[in-house]
Amino acid sequence: MTEFGFIEQIRQLFAALPDQGFEGIGDDCAVLPVDGGEALVFTSDLLTEGVHFLRHATSARELGCKSLAVNLSDVAAMGARPVATLLSIALPKDTTQQWALEFMEGYHDLSARFATPLIGGDTTRSETGITINVTAIGRAPIDHLKHRRDARPGDRIFVAGELGASGAGLRDILAGRLHTPLADAHRNPAPQVDEGIWLGARREVHAMMDLSDGLASDLCHILDLSHAGAEIDLESIPVATGSDLQTAACGGEDYKLLLTAQAEAADRLAAEFRAQFGTPLYPIGRITAGNGLTWLRNGQPEALDWHGFTHY
Amino acid sequence: MTEFGFIEQIRQLFAALPDQGFEGIGDDCAVLPVDGGEALVFTSDLLTEGVHFLRHATSARELGCKSLAVNLSDVAAMGARPVATLLSIALPKDTTQQWALEFMEGYHDLSARFATPLIGGDTTRSETGITINVTAIGRAPIDHLKHRRDARPGDRIFVAGELGASGAGLRDILAGRLHTPLADAHRNPAPQVDEGIWLGARREVHAMMDLSDGLASDLCHILDLSHAGAEIDLESIPVATGSDLQTAACGGEDYKLLLTAQAEAADRLAAEFRAQFGTPLYPIGRITAGNGLTWLRNGQPEALDWHGFTHY
Repeated sequence: MTEFGFIEQIRQLFAALPDQGFEGIGDDCAVLPVDGGEALVFTSDLLTEGVHFLRHATSARELGCKSLAVNLSDVAAMGARPVATLLSIALPKDTTQQWALEFMEGYHDLSARFATPLIGGDTTRSETGITINVTAIGRAPIDHLKHRRDARPGDRIFVAGELGASGAGLRDILAGRLHTPLADAHRNPAPQVDEGIWLGARREVHAMMDLSDGLASDLCHILDLSHAGAEIDLESIPVATGSDLQTAACGGEDYKLLLTAQAEAADRLAAEFRAQFGTPLYPIGRITAGNGLTWLRNGQPEALDWHGFTHY
Repeated sequence: MTEFGFIEQIRQLFAALPDQGFEGIGDDCAVLPVDGGEALVFTSDLLTEGVHFLRHATSARELGCKSLAVNLSDVAAMGARPVATLLSIALPKDTTQQWALEFMEGYHDLSARFATPLIGGDTTRSETGITINVTAIGRAPIDHLKHRRDARPGDRIFVAGELGASGAGLRDILAGRLHTPLADAHRNPAPQVDEGIWLGARREVHAMMDLSDGLASDLCHILDLSHAGAEIDLESIPVATGSDLQTAACGGEDYKLLLTAQAEAADRLAAEFRAQFGTPLYPIGRITAGNGLTWLRNGQPEALDWHGFTHY
């Protein structure tokens, strides 16, 4: 059974329950409208040793930071501001007090950077590996929230940073090269929190999500939910230094924002983004009225059996 | 390092961060006031194989149900109504699709009973054991919320059910007796959700929490935060059939509500609770102006080195 197969079965099993006011199944976060035209958003991610990280290949501080980063990225991908987290952590007997404290220092440093309090969670013993679950809560004006379902034919597709560093870094780590710049990038993702909040406030931004499983896979969620297609110009994909095009398109855990924006407003959006953050929005293609993802090389369709990255 | 030592270190590390409107550190849940005089509450619990459950000693369905139950119990302990949950689950390769679906059916059955939608979470592979994290969200009028800090000298102390079944059941399970009524009770806790909501609406109820680590341990959290003491009448502790007094006082995971109520209103409260739910509120002692927990046998202090149960 694949992860998505299991998730679909869960969805069907729970379909008849009342929604209690929550929305947004299929997005990076669930959404609960509250007062004053605002909404809260909620997301949860589980990291397990040997699947999401190797204990010998990361410092405790890096892991603490990354555990939070991947959740803040989901909140930002909705256009929301993170406002609190809950952390559950299970530690085997062979992790030291020093390890646990350094983990928490890493978690704290990123929490402090985005003024996000730790409001709860659980600490427990593990008979096996280290396991970490973070639930992040965000807040935004409800009309700032971006959904995967809102891409429209004609939209320009952007990514908000270079791709492929994390995937190439994972390759380095698995080959025992733990201290390359790419391995560092894999262990230290920088969630685009300020960028997500800023993009959330822009009405010309239609659909948005963060790239966790790779462009080839993640973009398809936007296409499925928007009932649309896309053309991606291979030569426009911004490949991180030391990575390669296929890894940029298929590698996981870059945690850059992927968004679609109204074509007429797209150039101005990109210019203002660059003025605000000093980095480009990279245009990589267009939403179409068709189906599925088409790779173009110099304007010509190219059949590529490229898929995203999966931990499952 | 103990669990509480680690939690205290975390608390200090994060003390300087802004609260973003959240309250309630030290209670079963964190609290966020929202509109209309209401508040949301949040709690998270992590269950790991070999620590919180033995795979051979529980069915998948029971485990799915219990994973949710312990979180609903925390929400109810605040006097709140559960409104949604997020579930993260990591499954090793040797768990079957059937196991995963039965787990979800158990989770669904209890979700349906309390009309609580599943709004998010994560599914992933595990290289080691099964790990489950549930985050539960509740809602209540803010003046219904009960806190551990609000016990007052003179308050009557109640528990909302018999104690010790779960602890005795765990003993049965560890001795290989998997199918006794007590082992069943250990695997199938019934969170007192309706009772918690009802008690939340009663102004004469001051402090409330659920008994997860055992009366001897959990009551001390109320005493510490309320800067008060307590006398517990040993002969008044309601011992579940087949258990014993010490297990009732010290065993974990009974998930019955522990509460303190204004003495003058306590008899009427208990009578109306019985009329509503058909079961008693058991008076077990009194909050005092002193310090710490004093066990009384026939009115005389008895020195007992009794402590709660810890998974850590």
